[in-house]
Amino acid sequence: MKRFSRSVATVGERELLDRYLPLLRRGAGREVPVPPGDDAAVVRGNAADWVVTTDMLVEDVHFRREWTSGADLGHKALAVNLSDLAAMGDVVPSFGVVSLGLPPSTPVGFVDDFYAGMSALARRHRFRIVGGDTVRSRRLTVSVTALGRVSRGARPVLRGGARPGDEILVTGTVGDAAAGLQILERRPRDRSTYAPLVRSFLRPFPRLDVCSRIGRTPGVTALMDSSDGFYRSVAEICRASGVGARVEAEAIPLSRAFRAWARSAGKNPLTVALSGGEDYQLVLTARPAAARELAREHVAGIVGRVLPAREKFMVYEKGKPRTVTGLYEHFA
Amino acid sequence: MKRFSRSVATVGERELLDRYLPLLRRGAGREVPVPPGDDAAVVRGNAADWVVTTDMLVEDVHFRREWTSGADLGHKALAVNLSDLAAMGDVVPSFGVVSLGLPPSTPVGFVDDFYAGMSALARRHRFRIVGGDTVRSRRLTVSVTALGRVSRGARPVLRGGARPGDEILVTGTVGDAAAGLQILERRPRDRSTYAPLVRSFLRPFPRLDVCSRIGRTPGVTALMDSSDGFYRSVAEICRASGVGARVEAEAIPLSRAFRAWARSAGKNPLTVALSGGEDYQLVLTARPAAARELAREHVAGIVGRVLPAREKFMVYEKGKPRTVTGLYEHFA
Repeated sequence: MKRFSRSVATVGERELLDRYLPLLRRGAGREVPVPPGDDAAVVRGNAADWVVTTDMLVEDVHFRREWTSGADLGHKALAVNLSDLAAMGDVVPSFGVVSLGLPPSTPVGFVDDFYAGMSALARRHRFRIVGGDTVRSRRLTVSVTALGRVSRGARPVLRGGARPGDEILVTGTVGDAAAGLQILERRPRDRSTYAPLVRSFLRPFPRLDVCSRIGRTPGVTALMDSSDGFYRSVAEICRASGVGARVEAEAIPLSRAFRAWARSAGKNPLTVALSGGEDYQLVLTARPAAARELAREHVAGIVGRVLPAREKFMVYEKGKPRTVTGLYEHFA
Repeated sequence: MKRFSRSVATVGERELLDRYLPLLRRGAGREVPVPPGDDAAVVRGNAADWVVTTDMLVEDVHFRREWTSGADLGHKALAVNLSDLAAMGDVVPSFGVVSLGLPPSTPVGFVDDFYAGMSALARRHRFRIVGGDTVRSRRLTVSVTALGRVSRGARPVLRGGARPGDEILVTGTVGDAAAGLQILERRPRDRSTYAPLVRSFLRPFPRLDVCSRIGRTPGVTALMDSSDGFYRSVAEICRASGVGARVEAEAIPLSRAFRAWARSAGKNPLTVALSGGEDYQLVLTARPAAARELAREHVAGIVGRVLPAREKFMVYEKGKPRTVTGLYEHFA
């Protein structure tokens, strides 16, 4: 019974994935050209390929009711899934389902607002919620599954394609959501002063506006969303691609509001930006010409370069490698 | 703020559905020929129609760890979704995703067994688990989304097509799972004596073996699974079709093990069979000729008849209407 002696907490998310992905992959054949492990899975259809993803949000783990309205939660539960679709490239969101675990004491108005918030975001992206399940539960729990159609002639861009010499890019500012979470948890009186930061945590904006542009650009080699934070996304691309990387701290885009908050809160902005998660930007690698093109058109900014595998992934600040600590661990 | 004054518990599942189905339906257009509210939703593809369903299972609501092994839970979480696909008729299960909310103390061996149990059932039906999400949660929570392909030339069979004069049929025995649950909760020492009953609760068998046969039979007018129990299924078909019904208690199939258990436990078998849930048989209505054909081939047994709307749905025992009490309420 040795295998029963360890708990999920001691194993961690990465090892859990390593344990089950091979098992899940066994079922994947020709009809599932991209097996589990990327932002979304790809399923080969007769006329088009489908991209499918699912995310679960749990009360007191991913959100607190005291600072999340029903509409915020409905928006976010769908947004994080749409972001996973965007992270596959030239994909059009199509349809999905939502399951809700509700404590019996949940006010009906909260559930009304939840569906209103989710429907508003769905309509904006012509995404159809076609079904769901509603059950009793101790903690409010939301699970959304979303499907998107791969555009005709396009191929999903995965995490594992980065090559030495590629540039590393990110589609927007880093750290806003991490600051927003700190404000909600520790300095709620700052909530109105730094409303855009709080909003970027509560109401993330999936980058469906640029994913097709990125997915259609020849020379884009790897793509994922930064739901686990910018630093982790680059680290994951390096792991999946078997490469190293060098990121220049000074090139990481930080918003004006984020800098102002960091100053007022006495925080090192780079520390928050690198360790925090939930940005929901896209992180990508591209051959230099493609990277310059995307940067010129303000689709994404260049922040570093892919290196051979023998080089570890490091963030350089003023030319010196910087240690990154305080990364979020799912089962800690 | 009046709408905030009521909780989910006071509203109940039926009213929750009535509140949100119209909102969800608004998004459904030509591409979603069957809007939310049936066992599964239907999505129109280029080459084939898809059927999609999702179900969430929550610890201490739908199962208890003390009597559910990881393999049982993995099996059941997928089985209840496959049953929803079967309840749409001539449908072939295709692919799906699974989300797991895990308390950090969960033994890794439990999670191993969960995936093994789910994979075994998936393989049997050539169903591919293509992705998922693993998060921290207080109570073990499983959410599965499953998609199936509607067979070429076939149309899903919905709940709302029953017409007066149709026969009512069920594909197997009723009450076994309800007895299994009572054994697990109240008389665990009976567990080995009545193993088939316990098994039908812990390891339901989705009726994918007969769904295509039923879905292809002309004259089948309504179809759903009996996950909420036989009585509720007939009541739901009546509601969705705008008809009444008369079911003969003596015609409801009860297993030999179920009768023996009821005797030994001092229970009225019909009371348990009618109020209990989780049977995962298929309940259907069909024109008399089709019903006779299905009965002759032992696909399903005839248990009653559809009546005009002015007649309420009633179960008759020895020719007299019988009151049904003790039905399970999701948010009670």
